Amino acid sequence: MMRTLDWVDDAIELVDQTRLPWEEVMLTIDNVTELVAAITRLSVRGAPALGVAGAYGVVLAARACGSGDTVEAFEDSVATLRAARPTAVNLAVMVDRVAEVARSKGQEAALEEAHRIRDEELAASIAMGDVGADLVVELTGRTSVRAMTICNTGGLATVERGTALAVIQTLHERGALLEAIPVETRPLLQGSRLTTWELERMGARYRLAVDSAGPFLLSRGAADVVLVGADRIARNGDTANKIGSFSLALGARHAGVPFIVVAPESTFDASTPDGQSIEVEYRSGSEVTGFAGARTSADGAEAVNPAFDITPAGLITAIVTDTRVIRP
Amino acid sequence: MMRTLDWVDDAIELVDQTRLPWEEVMLTIDNVTELVAAITRLSVRGAPALGVAGAYGVVLAARACGSGDTVEAFEDSVATLRAARPTAVNLAVMVDRVAEVARSKGQEAALEEAHRIRDEELAASIAMGDVGADLVVELTGRTSVRAMTICNTGGLATVERGTALAVIQTLHERGALLEAIPVETRPLLQGSRLTTWELERMGARYRLAVDSAGPFLLSRGAADVVLVGADRIARNGDTANKIGSFSLALGARHAGVPFIVVAPESTFDASTPDGQSIEVEYRSGSEVTGFAGARTSADGAEAVNPAFDITPAGLITAIVTDTRVIRP
Repeated sequence: MMRTLDWVDDAIELVDQTRLPWEEVMLTIDNVTELVAAITRLSVRGAPALGVAGAYGVVLAARACGSGDTVEAFEDSVATLRAARPTAVNLAVMVDRVAEVARSKGQEAALEEAHRIRDEELAASIAMGDVGADLVVELTGRTSVRAMTICNTGGLATVERGTALAVIQTLHERGALLEAIPVETRPLLQGSRLTTWELERMGARYRLAVDSAGPFLLSRGAADVVLVGADRIARNGDTANKIGSFSLALGARHAGVPFIVVAPESTFDASTPDGQSIEVEYRSGSEVTGFAGARTSADGAEAVNPAFDITPAGLITAIVTDTRVIRP
Repeated sequence: MMRTLDWVDDAIELVDQTRLPWEEVMLTIDNVTELVAAITRLSVRGAPALGVAGAYGVVLAARACGSGDTVEAFEDSVATLRAARPTAVNLAVMVDRVAEVARSKGQEAALEEAHRIRDEELAASIAMGDVGADLVVELTGRTSVRAMTICNTGGLATVERGTALAVIQTLHERGALLEAIPVETRPLLQGSRLTTWELERMGARYRLAVDSAGPFLLSRGAADVVLVGADRIARNGDTANKIGSFSLALGARHAGVPFIVVAPESTFDASTPDGQSIEVEYRSGSEVTGFAGARTSADGAEAVNPAFDITPAGLITAIVTDTRVIRP
């Protein structure tokens, strides 16, 4: 797989995820304003990818500062970038980490720190794939598994390979994947648009399903394991995940199927005690009331549109990180 | 509310539900082939409405027989109509009921029987609304409630008022509805397209949500009750409902919120012992892989598309019919 996000010729280069699966367009971004716009419209998304994009964004801010911007302008850019999306902890953490280096050691050191973050995410994806695939085989007792997943947690959500989808890719590379069942992930269809695109590229067998079919398919024995990513993990083990993950967790518990959260260590947020304390992003109702510019509900309809939900630790069989397996 | 389906000038007249919410188009159907096509493409849908449409369809078949078709042609039409969709019991039951009258007493008696079925459904909707609204107030202990629902179970799914949505309408007419939360009901968006259209017409306050947000919103206390329709109720109290109902039932149980199934007595199928025995309709994967003719997933993507799911009796707080409340 290609890198979906990288530093090329003094700028951030990334796949525009809003154009997939229809066309593969690379965006070149050389300033923070454009990066914040790309994050907001979800051209780049996925907790680890947001962390890497944020890290390089601080480098862009530091360079602008070096070319004439004031220190106040740098701090404003950092603050704006840090708050571009609230739920994924990685964005704020990585922005803070690189900003600290930029302040104390300058822009070249900041770029090195951003590269280090990118390389850590790459290594983490490989490690999560290995640790997770081993765990899936152990928990299911099967040498060939059917795995349900939600949203996009692949290379597009990280830099390469991904989190939950990295486990599915590793199973596939080991010849141990019978079938993946991605659910479509309304309203923005990341499962349908992005995950099927990645599964096609890896040559894996899969069938797409609507989100609400997940619990029913689990009850009929259609999958042996559910694998999801996470945007933040609280101190008590509650996790914030893409909206719909909680209902898959309920379905998995009802069906007696393991529910595994896969996320790098950077997703843990020691400052958040539990799921109730996690800020859940509510996005515009227009994402739900219409589709591709066309209205799909009654004239005047309003919507409530949480982008994430909270899965309590008690419903999670295991959390797989790049260094360990935690069983709540 | 207007009647969404009726017998007018020797033909079935019905609202084309595939054109809502964009335009209100009435279809006039005077032969069984067209009726089966309308049922298959979901121009008419909803278990009770399918029963009434099927009843009048047998009258059309009987008339064709009276105008020259053979008895074999009549029986073929009846068999095709009966099997046009498999999960809702009402279609087969009402077709059988009118066909029996047509065979023994002729086409005029068949028409009277079909009218009787229509009038029974009308009366049942009013009764379900009253019984259900009383029960909601009793179970929630509230005089003003927030009710979550899925798919379309209103006048469009019956003849007037509906099943689960009739309860919401009755609460609204009593001034006891604080808010409805319909979920959109992928892949065909009956909640988004049809239920918001009906809620707008009744002037009720509501917010639409994606299906998979239902369990999360329940966990955050956003609704006091979940109300769903049913397509078949087995002897042990398991119910077949629109896909997504089961995950709302799991969410309601987790949140400690009552989950109420609303359906006329005609939905009970004594010949089906339990949910496992109910045939669940799997529809074309193309309903999931694309939207309004445009592909929304990778080129080559396939989908598994169950149109219904099974909620076990143990997750159902109560079943409300036109004559009683059953608490499993």
